[in-house]
Amino acid sequence: MFAEIITIGDEILIGQIIDTNSAFIASELNKIGISVYQITSVQDDKAHILDALKEARSRAQIVFITGGLGPTKDDITKRTLCEFFDDTLIQNEEVLAHIEALFKKYISTPISDVNRNQALVPSKAQVLNNNFGTAPGMWIEDGDGVFISMPGVPYEMKDLMTNKVLPKLVKKYKRPFIIHKTIMTYGLGESAIAERIATVEDALPSFIKLAYLPNLGKVRLRLTAKGKEKEVLENGIKAVSSELYELIGDIITGEEEEGTIEAVVGKLLTARKLTMATAESFTGGKIAEQITSVPGASAYFVGSLVCYASRTKVDLLKVPENLISKYSVVSAEVAAAMANNIREIMKADFGVATTGNAGPTKGDSDAPIGTVYIAIASENGVEVQKFSMGNHRTRIVQKGVHKALEMLQKEILKF
Amino acid sequence: MFAEIITIGDEILIGQIIDTNSAFIASELNKIGISVYQITSVQDDKAHILDALKEARSRAQIVFITGGLGPTKDDITKRTLCEFFDDTLIQNEEVLAHIEALFKKYISTPISDVNRNQALVPSKAQVLNNNFGTAPGMWIEDGDGVFISMPGVPYEMKDLMTNKVLPKLVKKYKRPFIIHKTIMTYGLGESAIAERIATVEDALPSFIKLAYLPNLGKVRLRLTAKGKEKEVLENGIKAVSSELYELIGDIITGEEEEGTIEAVVGKLLTARKLTMATAESFTGGKIAEQITSVPGASAYFVGSLVCYASRTKVDLLKVPENLISKYSVVSAEVAAAMANNIREIMKADFGVATTGNAGPTKGDSDAPIGTVYIAIASENGVEVQKFSMGNHRTRIVQKGVHKALEMLQKEILKF
Repeated sequence: MFAEIITIGDEILIGQIIDTNSAFIASELNKIGISVYQITSVQDDKAHILDALKEARSRAQIVFITGGLGPTKDDITKRTLCEFFDDTLIQNEEVLAHIEALFKKYISTPISDVNRNQALVPSKAQVLNNNFGTAPGMWIEDGDGVFISMPGVPYEMKDLMTNKVLPKLVKKYKRPFIIHKTIMTYGLGESAIAERIATVEDALPSFIKLAYLPNLGKVRLRLTAKGKEKEVLENGIKAVSSELYELIGDIITGEEEEGTIEAVVGKLLTARKLTMATAESFTGGKIAEQITSVPGASAYFVGSLVCYASRTKVDLLKVPENLISKYSVVSAEVAAAMANNIREIMKADFGVATTGNAGPTKGDSDAPIGTVYIAIASENGVEVQKFSMGNHRTRIVQKGVHKALEMLQKEILKF
Repeated sequence: MFAEIITIGDEILIGQIIDTNSAFIASELNKIGISVYQITSVQDDKAHILDALKEARSRAQIVFITGGLGPTKDDITKRTLCEFFDDTLIQNEEVLAHIEALFKKYISTPISDVNRNQALVPSKAQVLNNNFGTAPGMWIEDGDGVFISMPGVPYEMKDLMTNKVLPKLVKKYKRPFIIHKTIMTYGLGESAIAERIATVEDALPSFIKLAYLPNLGKVRLRLTAKGKEKEVLENGIKAVSSELYELIGDIITGEEEEGTIEAVVGKLLTARKLTMATAESFTGGKIAEQITSVPGASAYFVGSLVCYASRTKVDLLKVPENLISKYSVVSAEVAAAMANNIREIMKADFGVATTGNAGPTKGDSDAPIGTVYIAIASENGVEVQKFSMGNHRTRIVQKGVHKALEMLQKEILKF
């Protein structure tokens, strides 16, 4: 059984916005055993949308449509669905009441006919109430298939997907099992790994797929098993996985944790009742931002000093001026002092510090672009590591943040 | 003349990664007058890719393909292109030399046959050298059309697109002109604007399209004109635009600036030789991160204190404890003190401060979730504003960062 996703909107096709909805929908479907066959982005154009609907339905049972549900003339999804299903728009009283209530509570301008028209839905559609906006979601059954239309606003779509669509899908369809296992490796490239595991890859059972996912110097190997019998899948994954451990056990660093590294660090700190603070130079506050993107971070994150200028490192972080002049601001010595001092100043259990040159021009030091020092201070002392992170500004910062969180995680695990 | 984009990879269809490449390609094509008709994401599956290539070619002259060029078995783009064009793979000596040089310089593992195979390309393809990786781009002409295959790694793709593909496209095709104009409004919703400009929208010339782009409480109106005669387009856009100014001039805040708000703020500060510092509570370092994402930010960004915990506001930012106990940590008074103090501590011309409750649980104050204060301090004194930003954590932070930069921009313009 397959699903397809059609995203509607000229703004996607001129590159004005990045389509993040499809990845969310696909990943949620995947969790309940539904595979996405194709994702298609089409224009705000009736003929184009009709083509896409027809083609998607020919390949898949479940067709998702996002976008084109706004109140204005360029939003034509509902009229197009009517044409596709030979249907007409009728007013839904419940939706109308919801729109009127939203206007009363949140919107200062008076409600208009254009707004009220958002309560018009195809007569064959079941309405899925949208808690966060005026455009309702719609569920239209078509034989053994279903069309699901949702607004393109990501947080409205996410709420509808999680609370309305997924429960209905789980109830309606018997689904195959899908099991993923992701094995993390470090130190070898994609092709070197491929050579070492060629015998396993050539003999994979037909219900298991293997994918290589390289990112920031690591390669993750994702095994996906799909089928009707859960036990067969589990045993298959187990067998392949242990063959992999035999062949490349030396470079396997673990299996995928639940969630992102900032969430993992948060869980570890919370469990140990420990706190952290950061002193960030070239990462510019991105470690703090990533840590505080996790709800509940106030329990373990004390604060951060973003000391972009050398002067700030001296004045506020109390890094001795002669340390900077002796070793340069991009040095192991300065990184260590930053980590120790922020730990002390913020009264935190861990101090995390970054200093480096992310380019594109050389800053306050003579260090080559991409040279980076990261330090983690704790009551055990301070760990410093040096890295060369290439010459691409955005990637240097991303890699630096990730590496700092990895080093922190390692230190926390000693407690 | 249309282009289409096909992105290849199971990781997109299971939602493991968000496809950002398509938006980049589409927006670059748009700038040179080429419209993207459809974007299609397909599986690592030969039959599926062949279908997509055929369909895309039936609708468009230029077909982009990203992904599936890695060295491993799940990367099948090149073999599939050979089948599509009834072609065979041949070794390209220049690519081979490049791969060998990359391994020698950057990669510690020895080069293998799998790596050398990346130098195999379809005999009909012109090679586009990839400066940042081992997989070459390819340009395959097909009558009056062309297929362009690029690796899926975003920074490799961007370099190829910018330096190899766009120049070749500009040389090969005569393109229509495309002109965009984006008018920014504030204070009215999408539907209220639609009512007020209905007469203009109903009478738009056929070569002009109007789109509504709502975001963070603002609606941008994008006019797009496309055609062969530049002057006709310019006059058309000018005429429609002045009609819009007549009808909704009261809510128009300007026309789209060049670049992001953090880049605009950076330009303004640089031109005035002024500096800034931030004291961030609920924004958690995201203002600093956004400011420092602009190359050259060290000229005007002194630093930031991320004071997530109330204690940090008192100990490091010297916000008087009795101010917090009297007014609460989420208050205009505390925001003002934070902005003034960070300006003084960091010796900056502008101090930017945020305090608020982003949820999901109430923090150190009794303020309702979504209540936010933002303050900008300068030698003119301190400006504070209060906002209610809804109940969605990520959106509260995003809106807060954006609003702080907007307020800062307004203050800078007074200097």
